[in-house]
This record gives sequence, C-alpha cells and structure tokens, in this order.
Amino acid sequence: MRGPTVAVIGAGISGLTMSKMLADYGLEFVTFESSDRIGGNWAFGNPNGHSSAYRSLHIDTSKHQLSFKDFPMPEDYPDFPHHTQIKDYLDSYADAFDIRRSIEFENGVVSAARLPGGGWELETQRTGTRTFDVLVVANGHHWDPRFAEKPGEFTGITMHSHSYIDPQTPYDLRGQRILIIGLGNSAADIAVELSSKTMGNEVVISTRSSAWIVPKYFAGKPADKYYRTSPHIPLAWQRKFVQIMQPMTAGRPEDYGLPSPNHKFFEAHPTQSVELPLRLGSGDLRAKGDIARFDGATVHFEDGTAEDFDVVIHATGYNITFPFFDPDLISAPENQIRLYKRIFKPGIDDLAFVGFAQATPTLFPFVECQTRLVAAWLVGRYAPPSVPEMERVIDEDQQKYTAHMVQRPRHTQQLDYFLYEHDLRVKEIPAGLERAR
Amino acid sequence: MRGPTVAVIGAGISGLTMSKMLADYGLEFVTFESSDRIGGNWAFGNPNGHSSAYRSLHIDTSKHQLSFKDFPMPEDYPDFPHHTQIKDYLDSYADAFDIRRSIEFENGVVSAARLPGGGWELETQRTGTRTFDVLVVANGHHWDPRFAEKPGEFTGITMHSHSYIDPQTPYDLRGQRILIIGLGNSAADIAVELSSKTMGNEVVISTRSSAWIVPKYFAGKPADKYYRTSPHIPLAWQRKFVQIMQPMTAGRPEDYGLPSPNHKFFEAHPTQSVELPLRLGSGDLRAKGDIARFDGATVHFEDGTAEDFDVVIHATGYNITFPFFDPDLISAPENQIRLYKRIFKPGIDDLAFVGFAQATPTLFPFVECQTRLVAAWLVGRYAPPSVPEMERVIDEDQQKYTAHMVQRPRHTQQLDYFLYEHDLRVKEIPAGLERAR
Repeated sequence: MRGPTVAVIGAGISGLTMSKMLADYGLEFVTFESSDRIGGNWAFGNPNGHSSAYRSLHIDTSKHQLSFKDFPMPEDYPDFPHHTQIKDYLDSYADAFDIRRSIEFENGVVSAARLPGGGWELETQRTGTRTFDVLVVANGHHWDPRFAEKPGEFTGITMHSHSYIDPQTPYDLRGQRILIIGLGNSAADIAVELSSKTMGNEVVISTRSSAWIVPKYFAGKPADKYYRTSPHIPLAWQRKFVQIMQPMTAGRPEDYGLPSPNHKFFEAHPTQSVELPLRLGSGDLRAKGDIARFDGATVHFEDGTAEDFDVVIHATGYNITFPFFDPDLISAPENQIRLYKRIFKPGIDDLAFVGFAQATPTLFPFVECQTRLVAAWLVGRYAPPSVPEMERVIDEDQQKYTAHMVQRPRHTQQLDYFLYEHDLRVKEIPAGLERAR
Repeated sequence: MRGPTVAVIGAGISGLTMSKMLADYGLEFVTFESSDRIGGNWAFGNPNGHSSAYRSLHIDTSKHQLSFKDFPMPEDYPDFPHHTQIKDYLDSYADAFDIRRSIEFENGVVSAARLPGGGWELETQRTGTRTFDVLVVANGHHWDPRFAEKPGEFTGITMHSHSYIDPQTPYDLRGQRILIIGLGNSAADIAVELSSKTMGNEVVISTRSSAWIVPKYFAGKPADKYYRTSPHIPLAWQRKFVQIMQPMTAGRPEDYGLPSPNHKFFEAHPTQSVELPLRLGSGDLRAKGDIARFDGATVHFEDGTAEDFDVVIHATGYNITFPFFDPDLISAPENQIRLYKRIFKPGIDDLAFVGFAQATPTLFPFVECQTRLVAAWLVGRYAPPSVPEMERVIDEDQQKYTAHMVQRPRHTQQLDYFLYEHDLRVKEIPAGLERAR
C-alpha cells in the first residue's frame, strides 16, 4: 500500500522529528531546508539567518525534560546544555536515524500553492517546481523578529535580540548606555551579560507587563524536575498552588526592583533566570516600565521619566511567519492561527503544522508527540473530526491553555506539554483511530 | 583628665571606625595610613596595593546587615552594593564625622617597637620616629596573598585573586585554559566571570575541601535577612537546623558536580554565589579535587587525572601579616594569633587589635562593636582580666566559634558577630567595667 507523497518544510527540531517519524512509517517524503545544515534555531550562526542563538546561550530546560523519548541525551551532558551541545545532539539524532538522506539542503520552499483538486505545488530554491500530495509546515516560529512599536524615532543603534551574538558582535556593546525592551528569557540573558561591571555599560530593562522570575535550580536540582502538570487534578487548583509557592521560593518581581506584574504567576510565561534578580539587586541593572515614545537619543517612559541611550535592543519575541504561503490562504496576524490540536487547519485536509506552540516545559517532546499523530493521519489510521467540531475544540483548547494568560501575541502559543500529551494519548488519538475506521 | 596618646595603624574599615570612636571619646590620636586615601580593601586600585577588589565585586552581605549602627547606608543603595558604593559610603562616613583630619596619609608605619617601660616607638614613612602610649593595630587581613603550596613548578602564568581586576587586567584571560584554586567567594566570582562562554575560556576550579554554596537571595529577600544566630538557643541546635535546611534550599555541592565536601554545612565558611551552581550545571565550568603537583604546563590532580593549563589563579585567601612588628614579638603563623576577644594580646597591656576576624555575616558591625570596648579601655573604664584568665577565655572562645569548623588557616578567624556582640554587651563589657573600678 502506497501512502501519499509528503513535503516537509524545514529541518529544525520540528522538521527533523517529523522526518524521522515519516521514515519510521516508510512514507515517501522530501524535507526542504533553506540552510546547508540541520538544526534551525539551534544551528548557531545558521547561514539562512534563522538562528536566534547567542554565543552564551544555554537551553532553559534541563536535559531530563528535553530528551526525545526515543533518543536520550548523552549521560555526560550538563543539566542545562549549551547550544553547541544541542546542535551536536540533533546531529547525532539525524545520523542515528539516517535522516539526512531525505533532506534537500539549500533548497528551501519559496512558495507553496494548493492545487485546485488538492495537493501542493512548491517553488523551490534549487529544483524549480515540485508537487506533493501533502504538505507539513515545520518552519519554526523563532526566527522572524518582532519589534516593539512605539511612537517617534530612536536615532541610536536599534537591534533585535535575534541578531545579538555577544557583547562585541554585531556591535561593540561596551561602555554604552543600553536599553533592553522585554523581559523574556533572551532579554534576561542579554541584560545579565551586558550589565556585568566588566563591560562598563549602563543597562536599563524596560518591561510592559513585568514578569515572574523563576530559578533554573531549586534545592540543588533543575527546577523543572519538580514541574509536571497532572491531568488528574483540576488545573485551577494546580495554578493556585504554584501561585502560592512562587513568592516563597523566588520572591515577587518587586523584590528586585522590577515593576509590579500586571498578572499573577503563571498567567504569562515566567522568565527563567538565576542571575537577573542578583543583577537588579546589585544595582548593575535597572528596570523601568513601558516606553511612551522615542525622541532622537532620548527614550520617554510611561512613568514620565526620560533617559538617553546609545543602543536599544528589542528582545520582544518573534512573529509566526509563513513566507511561502499566500497570506490570503494562510497567515498568523498577531501570532493568531486557528489550528486543531495545533496541527490541522480546518477546511484544508492535506496540510499539517508541526511545532507551532510555546510548549511548557519545552518543544522537543511536544513536537515528538505531534508527529506521532501526523504520521498516523498520513497512513490513514487517524482522522480528524468534522470542520465544525474542529472549530469548537479549537476554542475549548484555547480556553484551557491560554484563557488564564495575559492576551498578548507572545502568549497565543502557550501550551502545557503534559496536558497536551495526555489529551492526545488518552483521548484524541483513540478517537481519531475510531473515526478513521 | 588627659588619656593616653594613641596611634592607629590603617584607615580601612577597622582603622576608620576606630578613629571615629576615638574622636567621639575626645582622645588624642593619629591614624597612620600608607595610602593616599581611606578605605583599604574597598579602595579599588588602592595605590598601596592593599585592595583585593576586582572590577565587578559586589559585597556579599546585604546593606541591611552591613550598615554601621550610627551611619545607615543610603536608602537608594541596592541590596548588594558595588565596591564603588562601599567606598563612597566610607568616604561619607569619614566626612560626616570629620575623621580625615586625624589621618596622616602616605605615612604608613614601617616599624613599631615596644619601649622598655611601655609605650610604642614607630618608624613612619614620611615623619621619622613617633612615640605613643598605646598602639591600635587595624591593618587588615585581606591584603597579603596566600598561595597554595604544591610540589613541582607551573610554567604558565601564576597569579593570585588579589591581583585579578577583570578578564583583561592584569592579563588577557580570554581563549585560555584556566585553573582556579579555591572555592571561596573570590574563587566563585572569578570562576563565574571567566567561564562565561563569551570569554572563550576553558575553566576548571580545584577545591581541596569543597564548599557549601549559599544563595544571596532567598524568597526574594537578601538571604542574610533570615540569618541571625540567637544567643538564647544552644548553638549546636542552631547549627543542626541550618544543616538540615541547607540541602532543602540550595542543595548539596555534589548536585552541581562539586566534590563531596569534607565537612558538614557550617563547619566551614560557606561560599555565597548565585551563579556558580548554574555555571557548573551548564557545563561552562568544571570542578576537580585537590592538586597533587605541577609539572610544566601540566597539573596533576589527586584523583589521578592530569590536564594542561595556560593560567593558574590562586584564590586561596590571605595571610595575617604585621610587617611593622618584629616577628619574635608578634606574628600570626598559619593565621593563628591568640587574642582576648580578638583584641588584647595577653601580657602586652598597651596594644589592641581591631578587625581581625572573619566575622559572619560581615566585618562592619563587628569592628564597630570592638572599637566600643577599645575606647572604654583607653579611657580607663574597662579593664581586661588577668593574663591566666585571658588565656583560659581565649581557648573557650576558640572552642565556641571554630571548634565545629574544619581546622584550616582560612577558618582560624571565624566568628559569629551576633554571639560576639551579645557576649560583649551582656557579659564582657559589664565585667570589664567592674574590674576597672
């Protein structure tokens, strides 16, 4: 029995995992990768410009939570591997399962058009037009920088955390007055790095929503070893529990001079940083609220104060962008895209998405879990429900994963892996197998 | 009534506090300072070479514990002030109490000899011979570097943390293989600074005793806000309590790949570092046990392994040194010096020491407390007990403060400020007033 032909866009974590699963199922597929290497975001200095990794980046999830289920991380890896180690791990994964032979490197998909009777026509970088029965989109959502939009113009250096490499690359950020916008993990890491007294900088961090800071370690173990949402206890109770525990372990943002958060703990993605509270509490780094406007070298803040800066770094996240789709067909304005189980777009039955979530604690096992469903679907063993039912469930899931969150582009993708995995394993996949019979 | 004339050696924290107290009591005194400025250790780049401060140094005690009782730190200071702020604070202190007029700058004491009938003859840098009735030694104990003594010779760069300023001063410590010996606060700070992936170094820390790592913050407050030894609960119980609590908050050294400590928590001075566990757990920094010997560029470790290095940094503490005394009269071999209440040397009744303790949580209030006793002694209101009684109490106190400690030069000076202050206030000063009647 011959299945459909499949095209996968991207050979980062999502595309790689998808490719491995497709090979396991013996499906005919091609993975299109615009770069000369695998790894996407984790390929530091990726020539296709899609890596946001800086030189000092360590993953913020411990290796214990990070490993693919079928390919454990090396025993000798540290708790929080460096980006070079993540890349090595992905390379070993690709080698172990012989994934590279299905990847066409430096042959990205320029455009993807749906054919009238179904199927996809792809324009590729090197090999012209190619057609496939099914398209799997795995081009990632951490590569197209989103900038803070504020009135006025800043005349110093403006850059995004996406292009930050180290204190001397791409700009010499020593002896400078630096404003960092945002308080996510990248903002925290870059603020810590640039505010070391050895750099001679004056560093201010500006945050609109503020953030709860959580440590990477608790009682000597990676903090995420303690974290596991249970599907058997009401979610509201679990959220209440961590809301009570957080101030007892890591304190409140105001303790370190951060603005008061506009949300309770867990209503927005917390920021993982051991060093940020220390830097704030040591006076090396100052925090301010939202920006009102730019005016030349001056930045005016919402609190009425103003300060001059040489550099503004936007560490304000990323857009979900599908440069190969006609936006009328598929786009994600304000990072909103309605996908059933974050996979299927209702009404288009030969298209799947993989890796489009801000999964807690991390993307790796989430993607692995998604690709299991996608593969089952491709071989006809799983079928999604009707379009109206999909639309209903999308709303229900959105409510479950993000209703407790502050509504911001950053959080539209929020998802709890443990709940998601349980839902797919216990409910969605069995139901889909039934529907496919 | 005219009191004795007093010479104070040093205008660092100890000498400065002593000078302030002597002025308060209206005593005639001169403070001899070898440098052109006050502050001693806290005068970064002190031209007399007695500052061990590095560019990024923040004090490891929060400002709440640090303030002199009669001169609060500025409200706007961060929890853990930078060394420049400590220096500014000391300058304000000196200005507020007009202390500078009693200090002779660039006029250090070259030698101090006791006169046959009592009193002291000092040779000074600028002003020749000077005589005083009483001498107060306040020259500090964090300026004469102590090196690890190991067999063999290391042919790369050898330096002490005392001369470390920043990653480019005095040596360019980027792209190097660096071994740091020691696991105290300086070792931890320097290891963290040099192991940042942006430096391109390979950093190993070697520790003989290992160490318990405590955070600077706990539950959003400076951790030392929670720390206060009570004189009303048996000490053994209090030590047991923290020994049980420590692994629950900050974990065990082995959790981060440090060697197993050869002591329980609180049996040696713990190391305060937020970042060290993270760096170890991220693989940026590796830890090894003690060194067996040097051999050219190679360092052989006790565990049988060997590794090549470009630089060895000894962060192994300081010697207590009195360069102005004839060692036959007074010296501190292996940092041992028998002083009654860390102030009086039994048998020499016109000499006092101030600031010679590794006080927990910090030196400032401890020194303030000592100078109160010394001033009362100088005006004849306080008298120490007989020489045999002093000798007996020295043993008793040593037992109280350090018997539970690992016996190392580093720990001979260990002292709990809260117990010391309580002892002086409730017991020693009242008894001394009685004796002086």
